[in-house]
Amino acid sequence: MAKAAPISPLAPKTTPEIPPIDGVRFAAGAAGVRYKGRTDVMLALLDEGTRVAGVFTKSKCPSAPVDWCRARVEGGKARALLVNSGNANAFTGKTGKDAVKLSAKLAAAATGAPERQIFLASTGVIGEPLDASKFEAVLPKLAQKASADGWLDAARAIMTTDTYPKLSTRVALIDGVEVRIAGFAKGAGMIAPDMATMLAFVFTDAAIGADALQTLLSRSVRGSFNAITVDSDTSTSDTLLLFATGAAAARGAPDIEKANDRRLDAFRAALDEVLLDLAHQVVRDGEGARKFVEIVVEGAENDRAAKRVALSIANSPLVKTAIAGEDANWGRVVMAVGKAGEQADRDRLAIWFGGVRVAHRGLRDNGYDEAAVSEIMKRDEIALRVDLGIGLGSAKVWTCDLTKEYVAINGDYRS
Amino acid sequence: MAKAAPISPLAPKTTPEIPPIDGVRFAAGAAGVRYKGRTDVMLALLDEGTRVAGVFTKSKCPSAPVDWCRARVEGGKARALLVNSGNANAFTGKTGKDAVKLSAKLAAAATGAPERQIFLASTGVIGEPLDASKFEAVLPKLAQKASADGWLDAARAIMTTDTYPKLSTRVALIDGVEVRIAGFAKGAGMIAPDMATMLAFVFTDAAIGADALQTLLSRSVRGSFNAITVDSDTSTSDTLLLFATGAAAARGAPDIEKANDRRLDAFRAALDEVLLDLAHQVVRDGEGARKFVEIVVEGAENDRAAKRVALSIANSPLVKTAIAGEDANWGRVVMAVGKAGEQADRDRLAIWFGGVRVAHRGLRDNGYDEAAVSEIMKRDEIALRVDLGIGLGSAKVWTCDLTKEYVAINGDYRS
Repeated sequence: MAKAAPISPLAPKTTPEIPPIDGVRFAAGAAGVRYKGRTDVMLALLDEGTRVAGVFTKSKCPSAPVDWCRARVEGGKARALLVNSGNANAFTGKTGKDAVKLSAKLAAAATGAPERQIFLASTGVIGEPLDASKFEAVLPKLAQKASADGWLDAARAIMTTDTYPKLSTRVALIDGVEVRIAGFAKGAGMIAPDMATMLAFVFTDAAIGADALQTLLSRSVRGSFNAITVDSDTSTSDTLLLFATGAAAARGAPDIEKANDRRLDAFRAALDEVLLDLAHQVVRDGEGARKFVEIVVEGAENDRAAKRVALSIANSPLVKTAIAGEDANWGRVVMAVGKAGEQADRDRLAIWFGGVRVAHRGLRDNGYDEAAVSEIMKRDEIALRVDLGIGLGSAKVWTCDLTKEYVAINGDYRS
Repeated sequence: MAKAAPISPLAPKTTPEIPPIDGVRFAAGAAGVRYKGRTDVMLALLDEGTRVAGVFTKSKCPSAPVDWCRARVEGGKARALLVNSGNANAFTGKTGKDAVKLSAKLAAAATGAPERQIFLASTGVIGEPLDASKFEAVLPKLAQKASADGWLDAARAIMTTDTYPKLSTRVALIDGVEVRIAGFAKGAGMIAPDMATMLAFVFTDAAIGADALQTLLSRSVRGSFNAITVDSDTSTSDTLLLFATGAAAARGAPDIEKANDRRLDAFRAALDEVLLDLAHQVVRDGEGARKFVEIVVEGAENDRAAKRVALSIANSPLVKTAIAGEDANWGRVVMAVGKAGEQADRDRLAIWFGGVRVAHRGLRDNGYDEAAVSEIMKRDEIALRVDLGIGLGSAKVWTCDLTKEYVAINGDYRS
């Protein structure tokens, strides 16, 4: 495991206070999976009637817990969530499947929930067998001490190379009744050093049917977790689960079965905000990151093309190293636009750094103020905008710079 | 421009001696495009009857000289090649087109060749206008002093951040007559710091029709220049031209019009070797590179899938930083296989570093000798092999590691 790093300079200045969400309780403990002297296991207990939705890594080699969750999420019901750090249980073959089964069995015994309603996630080293029997002693204690205000402990227990816990919360009205949404995430790079995974868990007391919940989640990730990149590397374990306990029904919130129900408008917006906040926090903890970069692409043939161009820019090592060097190197942005393979025309392209247009119609913009751009490039947060001048497609993605620290963190000897 | 770097530790130990190729003469000079105290312009004179083929960047924002060459290569005939370093003439709009026209006009005046048979390439900074009038004084002198043994000077004049000139040569028999192939390339990263371009120029005295030449070239790049990556970034200016003077016909070599003519078998193999040698030299000069890495993927659904998986591994920042750290981190290789999007099955995957199998059937290979793998990872050249265990598709690609020096070179302030 990499040595403890100082907190990312891009970390939010404060950690948000998360209010209780009816129907959810948390506990964290130390099972000794890999780390010493810290918590590495988190249990969330979910009241009966909780619905669940999930999105997972697109990797063709997903981890054993991803396979488990993907199969279970179809049932739409959840009673518990068990997450460990220190071992990703990825590329562990049959041993991995056995570890998942044993984990579910132990969690079921400790919580009284049916195994098929237990959700699992693991993050940490790849390819080492996970000894799930280590959960046996700790799970009953966690089930007993779980409390509604255990958010921060839960968020901390799932960290690997993260330099800070990532939490977010919002409220929304559904048909006049206030409901809460809150969640936490981990990830510092699509994969942290020798560690796998971006994990995020979001909870609400809203009463929303599982199908509708899945639709809401799948839509919301497009502009948040699917619009961030640290290093273009896709984890074997990416997991985002959304749990709705329905406890707000007791306070008069309607039970809603359709994702396009207009009464969900505010909820949808709040969910978008929570996911985007957590996704941004992951980028802000990107390995070695010193700059948070927003990339907007406009004027593309369509939104899909815009996103592909935006990600091509966001993933370009040459763009990312230029930003690390505080260099408004629009030549490299042109290169990244060109390599995306989408329709582009040199002579229509315009590029802005932090609102200053540096290139226009196939040429350097001779009018631009070098000193102003220099100042912009020194900031922690940099906005890069590209207008392709072709159509109406647009997209927004976020990334961080590529620094020597990224290489140092990821090039350290594993042993 | 980046400061002069020491020669790459991966450079070939010797620079090959290139013999004259009948029908080609070279000269290099200093036009003062950008650099001081070094040559920055190269002129190759080609005898009448020279045929030409070319492959170019797939960028949607190609440089002005790429547009020029792509249009001219269709004619199949060439009489001169003019290349400058210091300025890529990319993203320069109408000014760029004008600079290309002026360059061709000046080269035509100096050489007596028709403008449409003049080929141009530029490498260097993007987005700055190229002042082609600087060629006016120097071109007549170059045309006059061009000689058959000017190879090394020519190769040096087109360097940007390259740390050594890249040359290669082979001979082949066509129908019992010896023909020569020789060429040179530049490139140190798909794009060097604020510089654009991988350029390669290959010459032969064989007598081969333009269509056949194009077919031979397009085939040969698949396994060479299209199988290397330093940083996944695609230049706006990539240009590879193959010129056949036909001078060997005077010594009895047949004029061949069909690429699949069996008399070209040895020539084809020699051409493959020259291109592969030059492509490897580009990787060996990869910015900041300390390790030359060969990646073989076997057992894929088909060759295309194998190549996509191989490039996914070769372009993964996490794999490349692990190799820089001399860490046989097969977990990251699994990750890169998974993210490629091609058919893969964790439980069939096997991974070797330098001949030692470290993972097998979805599991760490418990039999492997850690000390042996450790020794392998310390080498300059590392072979990584992945068997997907699914089909018969295979591919081989080459890359280098990702080091702090790469970030330093590319993160330097431009000014």
